[in-house]
Amino acid sequence: MKIQILTTGGTIDKFYFDRKDTFQVGEPQIGQLLREANVTVEYEIRALLHKDSLELTDEDRELIVAAVRDTPCERFLITHGTDTMLQTAATLQQRISGKVMVLTGAMQPAISRTSDAFFNIGFAFCAVQQLPPGAYVAMNGRIFTPGAARKNVEMGRFEPT
Amino acid sequence: MKIQILTTGGTIDKFYFDRKDTFQVGEPQIGQLLREANVTVEYEIRALLHKDSLELTDEDRELIVAAVRDTPCERFLITHGTDTMLQTAATLQQRISGKVMVLTGAMQPAISRTSDAFFNIGFAFCAVQQLPPGAYVAMNGRIFTPGAARKNVEMGRFEPT
Amino acid sequence: MKIQILTTGGTIDKFYFDRKDTFQVGEPQIGQLLREANVTVEYEIRALLHKDSLELTDEDRELIVAAVRDTPCERFLITHGTDTMLQTAATLQQRISGKVMVLTGAMQPAISRTSDAFFNIGFAFCAVQQLPPGAYVAMNGRIFTPGAARKNVEMGRFEPT
Amino acid sequence: MKIQILTTGGTIDKFYFDRKDTFQVGEPQIGQLLREANVTVEYEIRALLHKDSLELTDEDRELIVAAVRDTPCERFLITHGTDTMLQTAATLQQRISGKVMVLTGAMQPAISRTSDAFFNIGFAFCAVQQLPPGAYVAMNGRIFTPGAARKNVEMGRFEPT
Repeated sequence: MKIQILTTGGTIDKFYFDRKDTFQVGEPQIGQLLREANVTVEYEIRALLHKDSLELTDEDRELIVAAVRDTPCERFLITHGTDTMLQTAATLQQRISGKVMVLTGAMQPAISRTSDAFFNIGFAFCAVQQLPPGAYVAMNGRIFTPGAARKNVEMGRFEPT
Repeated sequence: MKIQILTTGGTIDKFYFDRKDTFQVGEPQIGQLLREANVTVEYEIRALLHKDSLELTDEDRELIVAAVRDTPCERFLITHGTDTMLQTAATLQQRISGKVMVLTGAMQPAISRTSDAFFNIGFAFCAVQQLPPGAYVAMNGRIFTPGAARKNVEMGRFEPT
Repeated sequence: MKIQILTTGGTIDKFYFDRKDTFQVGEPQIGQLLREANVTVEYEIRALLHKDSLELTDEDRELIVAAVRDTPCERFLITHGTDTMLQTAATLQQRISGKVMVLTGAMQPAISRTSDAFFNIGFAFCAVQQLPPGAYVAMNGRIFTPGAARKNVEMGRFEPT
Repeated sequence: MKIQILTTGGTIDKFYFDRKDTFQVGEPQIGQLLREANVTVEYEIRALLHKDSLELTDEDRELIVAAVRDTPCERFLITHGTDTMLQTAATLQQRISGKVMVLTGAMQPAISRTSDAFFNIGFAFCAVQQLPPGAYVAMNGRIFTPGAARKNVEMGRFEPT
C-alpha cells in the first residue's frame, strides 16, 4: 500500500514571519511529523499549493482534482486549510471515483507548542488506509462526509449537520 | 459511538523525576492530547496501571482483560508500553471476542518536544472507530495483528513478521 | 530585591487566532515562563498594553513612563515588540533616572516550539539584577544601550551601530 | 568579548533512550539553544564530559579545572548536573583566579516540552558577561556563590544557606 500526500497550505503549515509581522503559509510540516512518528508505510509528499484555504480559487481546486486523477495511486491524504476544506472535499467527491481521498488540517499551526496537527495527521493517516473509496474530512477525531458536516467557527471545530 | 480508553503506563506517560534522577511512569497524557485535538467523539479515560510494560505481570494482564470484559463498551483504546504490547494484544485476542481493542504507545515520552505520542494516539483513535472486532497494535502508522508483528528493538519500531 | 515586570505586547505574546485567521497579541507569556523556570526572586507582573510595537502611540509610551515612575521599585523588566523597542528605551532613558529598566522581547512567539522567548527572558532577568540604573535593550545575548543599536530587519536581530 | 562554553552532562542534556528504557546523557543541547536564540556574541562550545553529576569523580573535576585554566579565555559558561554543581563551583573558586566561571544546568531535560533549560542558559549567558571574576552557580533566576547555597532536593531548587 502506498499513500500519496498532497499539501495545499492552510493553518497547519503557517509560521510567524517577523519581517512582515504576520503569519504566512510555509513549507509542508507533514514530512517532519511523519519522520518523528517513524512511519513505515510507503508514502510520497507533493507540495501542490501554499495557500490559506479562503484564497483557493476554482483553478486551484482544478489543480487538486487533476493531481488526484493523474497520479496512479489509490489513496490520497490531502492537507488543507479548514475554512474551505469541506468545499474541496465536495468537489473531489463529485469529480473522482474509485479513490480514497482524506482531507485534514489543523486549527493551530504545527509549529506551535500545542497543536492539533500531530493528532490530526495520525488520525488521517489511519483513515486513508481503512476507508472505502470516496472523499472525507478527518477532523476532531471524526470522519465526516462532505455533505454532512460544517465548520463551527465559534467553537473552532467541525460538526455533523 | 463511545470509546473507552484504558491506560497502563509505558514510555508514553514517562517523565523525568529530578528527585530520583530517573524517568518514571506518570499520569496518563492521553487526556491532555485529546483536549488539545479538540476531539468531539465521546470517550472516557480509566487509569488502570502505571507500569513500564516489561514489569507487567500475569495478574496485571488479567486486570486488563477484566477491565475490557466488564466494561459495557464495544471499542477500547489501550495505551501500553511497547516492549510487551504484542503479548498483551495476544492475550486480549484469545480471551475477548466481539470487541475492538486497539493498543498503542510511544517510543518517546509525550512530554518530549518531539514524540510519536500525538501521531500514534490520533492514528489509534481512528483505528478503534474503523476496525472490526479483534485486538490490534497500532504503531508506526500501521495496524498489526498480534501474531504477525514484532518489535525491532534496534530500529525502534514495529515490523511485520 | 524585587523585580517589577511590565508587559506591553509584541511578538513574544502573539498567538494564532483561528477565528480571524491571524496572529494576535494575547496574554503575557512571561508568567508561565518564570513558573517553568521555578524562579525564586520576588517579582510582580503587570499587563500594561497588548500591542504590536509598531502600533504604540506617544500616549502608550507616556503610560509606560508613568508606570515606571510611579511604581516604588528600582528594577523593571519590560516585554515589548522588537520594532520600536529601541525607541521606547530611548524615551525611558531620557525621562527616568535612578532605575534599572531592561526591555526584551522575541522574534518568534513564546508559544512556538522553537522560540527565542525563553532565552531572552532568562537573559533579561539576569540583566535587570546586575546592571546599574539606566534603560537597556537585552536581545540576541547582548546588552544594548538605546543610542548605540539598531534592529537589522533582514537578519532578524539587533546589532551595535 | 568571547565566551568559552564547557559542557559536562547533567539533566539538561538527558534524553530518553528507548532501547534501554532509560534516560541517558546525550549530546550538548546548548548549541541548539543558542542558535534558536540567534545569539551574536562570540562563543565556542567544548563537550568535556557526558555524565550525571553524581557520577563525577575527582579526576573529572581536575579535567574541568584544567580546561578552564588552560583555555586562554576570561569567561566560562559551564553546563553541569545540579546535584554536585555547588561542589564543582567550590573547586573552581579555590583553584582558579582571574576568570569568570558561571555554572548552570536544568531540573528538566532541554528536550522536554517544558524545561527550565532555555531560561537558565539565557540567564547564565548574561551572568557570564556581567559578573566579576569568580565561580558562580546561576539557577532559579539567581546568582549564588558556592559557599552560600544549597540544593533543596524536595523543592527541586537552589536556595541561599
